Amino acid sequence: MKSLNVGLIGYQFMGRAHSNAWRQVDKFFSLPVKPVLHTICGRDAQRVEAAARQLGWQKTATRWQDVVSDPEIDIIDISTANDTHAEIAIAAAKAGKSILCEKPLARNVREAEAMLAAVKKAGVVHMICHNYRRIPAIAQAKKMIAAGDLGRIFHYRARYLQDWIVDPDFPLVWRLQGKLAGSGAHGDINAHIIDLGRHLVGELVEVCGHLETFIKERPLPGSKGRKGRVTVDDAAVTLGRFKNGALCNLEASRFALGRKNHLQLEINGSKGSLVFDLEDMNRLKFFDNADPSDRQGYRDILVTEPVHPYAGAWWPPGHILGYEHTFVHTVFDFLKAVAKGRPVEPSFAEGLQNQRVLAAIEKSSTTRRWVKIPR
Amino acid sequence: MKSLNVGLIGYQFMGRAHSNAWRQVDKFFSLPVKPVLHTICGRDAQRVEAAARQLGWQKTATRWQDVVSDPEIDIIDISTANDTHAEIAIAAAKAGKSILCEKPLARNVREAEAMLAAVKKAGVVHMICHNYRRIPAIAQAKKMIAAGDLGRIFHYRARYLQDWIVDPDFPLVWRLQGKLAGSGAHGDINAHIIDLGRHLVGELVEVCGHLETFIKERPLPGSKGRKGRVTVDDAAVTLGRFKNGALCNLEASRFALGRKNHLQLEINGSKGSLVFDLEDMNRLKFFDNADPSDRQGYRDILVTEPVHPYAGAWWPPGHILGYEHTFVHTVFDFLKAVAKGRPVEPSFAEGLQNQRVLAAIEKSSTTRRWVKIPR
Amino acid sequence: MKSLNVGLIGYQFMGRAHSNAWRQVDKFFSLPVKPVLHTICGRDAQRVEAAARQLGWQKTATRWQDVVSDPEIDIIDISTANDTHAEIAIAAAKAGKSILCEKPLARNVREAEAMLAAVKKAGVVHMICHNYRRIPAIAQAKKMIAAGDLGRIFHYRARYLQDWIVDPDFPLVWRLQGKLAGSGAHGDINAHIIDLGRHLVGELVEVCGHLETFIKERPLPGSKGRKGRVTVDDAAVTLGRFKNGALCNLEASRFALGRKNHLQLEINGSKGSLVFDLEDMNRLKFFDNADPSDRQGYRDILVTEPVHPYAGAWWPPGHILGYEHTFVHTVFDFLKAVAKGRPVEPSFAEGLQNQRVLAAIEKSSTTRRWVKIPR
Amino acid sequence: MKSLNVGLIGYQFMGRAHSNAWRQVDKFFSLPVKPVLHTICGRDAQRVEAAARQLGWQKTATRWQDVVSDPEIDIIDISTANDTHAEIAIAAAKAGKSILCEKPLARNVREAEAMLAAVKKAGVVHMICHNYRRIPAIAQAKKMIAAGDLGRIFHYRARYLQDWIVDPDFPLVWRLQGKLAGSGAHGDINAHIIDLGRHLVGELVEVCGHLETFIKERPLPGSKGRKGRVTVDDAAVTLGRFKNGALCNLEASRFALGRKNHLQLEINGSKGSLVFDLEDMNRLKFFDNADPSDRQGYRDILVTEPVHPYAGAWWPPGHILGYEHTFVHTVFDFLKAVAKGRPVEPSFAEGLQNQRVLAAIEKSSTTRRWVKIPR
Repeated sequence: MKSLNVGLIGYQFMGRAHSNAWRQVDKFFSLPVKPVLHTICGRDAQRVEAAARQLGWQKTATRWQDVVSDPEIDIIDISTANDTHAEIAIAAAKAGKSILCEKPLARNVREAEAMLAAVKKAGVVHMICHNYRRIPAIAQAKKMIAAGDLGRIFHYRARYLQDWIVDPDFPLVWRLQGKLAGSGAHGDINAHIIDLGRHLVGELVEVCGHLETFIKERPLPGSKGRKGRVTVDDAAVTLGRFKNGALCNLEASRFALGRKNHLQLEINGSKGSLVFDLEDMNRLKFFDNADPSDRQGYRDILVTEPVHPYAGAWWPPGHILGYEHTFVHTVFDFLKAVAKGRPVEPSFAEGLQNQRVLAAIEKSSTTRRWVKIPR
Repeated sequence: MKSLNVGLIGYQFMGRAHSNAWRQVDKFFSLPVKPVLHTICGRDAQRVEAAARQLGWQKTATRWQDVVSDPEIDIIDISTANDTHAEIAIAAAKAGKSILCEKPLARNVREAEAMLAAVKKAGVVHMICHNYRRIPAIAQAKKMIAAGDLGRIFHYRARYLQDWIVDPDFPLVWRLQGKLAGSGAHGDINAHIIDLGRHLVGELVEVCGHLETFIKERPLPGSKGRKGRVTVDDAAVTLGRFKNGALCNLEASRFALGRKNHLQLEINGSKGSLVFDLEDMNRLKFFDNADPSDRQGYRDILVTEPVHPYAGAWWPPGHILGYEHTFVHTVFDFLKAVAKGRPVEPSFAEGLQNQRVLAAIEKSSTTRRWVKIPR
Repeated sequence: MKSLNVGLIGYQFMGRAHSNAWRQVDKFFSLPVKPVLHTICGRDAQRVEAAARQLGWQKTATRWQDVVSDPEIDIIDISTANDTHAEIAIAAAKAGKSILCEKPLARNVREAEAMLAAVKKAGVVHMICHNYRRIPAIAQAKKMIAAGDLGRIFHYRARYLQDWIVDPDFPLVWRLQGKLAGSGAHGDINAHIIDLGRHLVGELVEVCGHLETFIKERPLPGSKGRKGRVTVDDAAVTLGRFKNGALCNLEASRFALGRKNHLQLEINGSKGSLVFDLEDMNRLKFFDNADPSDRQGYRDILVTEPVHPYAGAWWPPGHILGYEHTFVHTVFDFLKAVAKGRPVEPSFAEGLQNQRVLAAIEKSSTTRRWVKIPR
Repeated sequence: MKSLNVGLIGYQFMGRAHSNAWRQVDKFFSLPVKPVLHTICGRDAQRVEAAARQLGWQKTATRWQDVVSDPEIDIIDISTANDTHAEIAIAAAKAGKSILCEKPLARNVREAEAMLAAVKKAGVVHMICHNYRRIPAIAQAKKMIAAGDLGRIFHYRARYLQDWIVDPDFPLVWRLQGKLAGSGAHGDINAHIIDLGRHLVGELVEVCGHLETFIKERPLPGSKGRKGRVTVDDAAVTLGRFKNGALCNLEASRFALGRKNHLQLEINGSKGSLVFDLEDMNRLKFFDNADPSDRQGYRDILVTEPVHPYAGAWWPPGHILGYEHTFVHTVFDFLKAVAKGRPVEPSFAEGLQNQRVLAAIEKSSTTRRWVKIPR
């Protein structure tokens, strides 16, 4: 079987999750190719060595340029911080590599456009890693919506809530600095529910949003008592309208005590409704208006049956999957696409369109009015 | 419209709940007769006067014999402690009154048999107040089971858990004294899940049970520091087999911290399953095995639709009912039966059979083996 | 004990709920006065007679003016459609009656201002019936927030979802006609979550909203096949900011299949969070950030303990209350205020301020931008 | 770092789960040794070859004797069917290997005793794979109980429900044949809740159980229309008493439609209660009686914090784990024990005691009375 050599740039949270996916995918799924954990790259030689040992990579590199230009490498996986995505992706495209890139695609629309142009010009396979699309429950929801089981859609409401910076003494880490992170909850978690909304319901045509920073100053890390300005949002609330007439209501926040990774979404249509909760991600709730009138109610579907997307590759019914499985599913579909040289969704084009929505919300937060989304 | 005069014996917890039912029933349901809150009876003249004023009764009495022999009274409602049910009911039957009696029917099988014989001989309408049968969700469950929606039944498991005597300093009130109360959790709450099991699944033929008293001594009320022996059970666990082959698993306890009035039951059949929880009593969960394989799951039915039993008489869908409504439904059906001189379920015969099951469990707890239930 | 004679205008859904409250309040709560169900009023003589019989009123009237001017009447309870509130309330104030008025207070800010001016001038007791404020769980939430248990509040998110007009063949009833109903989901159910937000979190200073009508035309009742224009909203989505800096996110819709009376709200503060769901209204979920780090989690509080607001007057712990109990609590507090001639919350001033928020959202929906709320 | 070579006997469901654990453990946990997936063994050469390729093993074998006698192998992992555990384990002990054995330990008490004797005599490290003990939520529960947070324990109730053989046309596979499987739901899933009860609450001293076979005959696989007798139980219900006075109530069934892998347990003590559900295995519910009286309620603890057992090795809070992670935790603790030559729990002694409980229940089901458990 043909091998595909992977070069992974980044070894932190996402680097660990992606490493796991490359390592696990052929243990559970049948593939026409064999992924090889060829090179992992990070700026700190000692730490990247340790990461390679722990995560199972054959080689290390400290300059991403070396990985991108390595002729042995087939796939570049970009799991670095947001501000380096564009540069690496464009170089990888020029080098003819297949590219998997973490979300959000870039820091802004301009960068995202350049990235899309580069991969198109190079004709390489490209994918943005919106792993939540491949949660079995979400894939099942997509299938049902595509089959018309919800009818005309009226509402998409979603929230992504966390609570890790409620403490005002939490320091001003890089993720809270606009220059490095781009934005706060907005690009980090609002991006997820925007992508899921576009994936499940359709294109957004107009938005109105508000970004808020509750704690304006925080302790500078390592400096006793000195404080610095927080330059990203703590929370983002958004209204929107989809092309098909459905309403959109989004809330992303890092200030919701008790909500750890609480992505909850609900879709209401003319024939039924769907509800999903990431902290309970093996379930999908479905209300079917065609059920007899005295026995209607949200069905609590445990999405672990062989008939459900991806689920059959793992364990018997009722044996639940966890967070990292979603990356395995993503890498599975990506590898099939690379093997056949075919496109795969979500492509960079999707990433670019998400970026346009993010930008429109930011603009709306400043102008205090609704903003149309270009396409 | 013809009036029916009610004489209520007892004015405490059950007296208040029954008073409410007599008062409310014709405000929400259409009846061929008009119930009149004629006389309330209790041994303490002052307190029964206060109760009459608060609860809306026209007259008071301090001797139940006076109520039973009052020619103006049509219905005797027995809401007293367990040890007086038989005496009052038998006298009321002889006096030709229609009788509604609180559960458990009596202190033992012998008393219950005498009560049933008396009402049969007198030809009066008789009913035991197992109000939970008329929770809309339970009535809906009964309807579905009767229609065969569950197929052959394999399992009935139920538990009724409370926590009001976990504290060892809780005093030795009358409910914890065998002479007055008969039994503890067994007759008080196990009786409910036994009745629901027989109502929903069928006759029990054999049981094996164990009664446990965790706290053997408790402070005597009003006596500083002195303690007395607890002579009832704190908890009862039971296995059983139904005539139709289904298994029964029951647990009743007053020692389950955090469980306030937690009656939870589940029935599994060859075509579907049902789940009910009294603390969430407006819902019924239903698993239908005929649903398509990728969208099966317990349906969370909010039993507040006009199509559901009793629910339409109250409020629009989604506006939930409370505990006391179940007594209103019971009294509604009882009054219809009295008006037409027809039998109504659950009759004293049901109360007697429940008593036989209770007795068999007690015997089993002593003999340490399975015990057959006579019929 | 002194009696207070009540005159109720209206006998439909709200008339039934209010009748129940007047009838039940002194059966469960101790009052310094006795409410008397004196007169019920409706335009159709025959139907109001039937309502009086069923609901327990002594007299009937067909002109509200006769009730307002009746010297025997102490209290006017306005449960009519929205378009008559102002007229009746102003007349009742002039007649010196205590007034309980259904929500929303009026059709618009101008009417509401006139009503408030009238009751102030007359010096009568006035209250708007926002019954949800007196759900025990909500009253408990209010108590906890007032005690500072949540700390600084960051988020209020609430949704009130129903599904009764999803069917496009549902006819164009008066509630879907702007002239009669004022608005749709907006004034009917958005009003509730606006009031709860102001009650629990504080004043709103700015809003941005969007009203949507999904089904533009519906069958005219009684006319075969002809259709008329729907002139109210089907759904309303709103962002807002509170004076204390908290963000507000609201959604009200009649187009959410499977949601019957789904009012769900969540409040996140710097010390804790609260979650409430009307379809499960006996519970309040509370996250306490002061709990030990390895055992933090939303507590599922069953708000039926004697220590909880209003709950002790009813049944033992775990015996749940229903929808109509909230009106009993409202009437209880109103009667105490009337007996002592003291103000009671929420007064017409609260109703007026809610109206200003409703109006600001409507304006924002037209101007497509944020709108400040006057005070 | 020292390597430890693993020989895995069996490659089906458990073989896949164990392979994953050996492969993943050092990617997430720090170990003083390096596990090597040395040899996988199965009777069918072709299929074991395929398994080795897919699951990541270096060599294959078709006779377990060859693996046990291979001097390169340090650890024997027994993941075969129940009827071969004793033979393999005893041989492996004699060969001086460390042994991890799937549950139930053996087919009967006699075999289990022989296995324990063998590992004791050989002085090797031995462990039975009761992986559910190392679900983070269960490990957290154990910690809390050990710290006295529940006080005196009154109740342990647990059920393990599945639904995969409700269909009477499901064939008579080997798991439904007594000779091969030993028992049905009893040894397969009752064994799990027995082990968890003993782990969390203490020793059982007495039991009373009933084994039931609902469907007595089933189609023979591969034979058109012919049927054979089912010689194992479909369901097992059990009452029991623990040494510390707590009551035990167990139910294991393969006939509960809609329950896929539904292991639910509840423990009630004098200070608090705990609830766990395997289908929602990242959560633990905890009722703390020391909470203020107006804000008591089951806490819904998401057991994904760094402070929780095992959880910190994986992902950030709120990113849930799945079924197979429990094997990784088991193998992690086993490897540490092997590296240091120290005992690890649950040892074969625990497996033997579980076997005694299983045997006592079987005996009780026949004698129809309570049976004492030897120790």
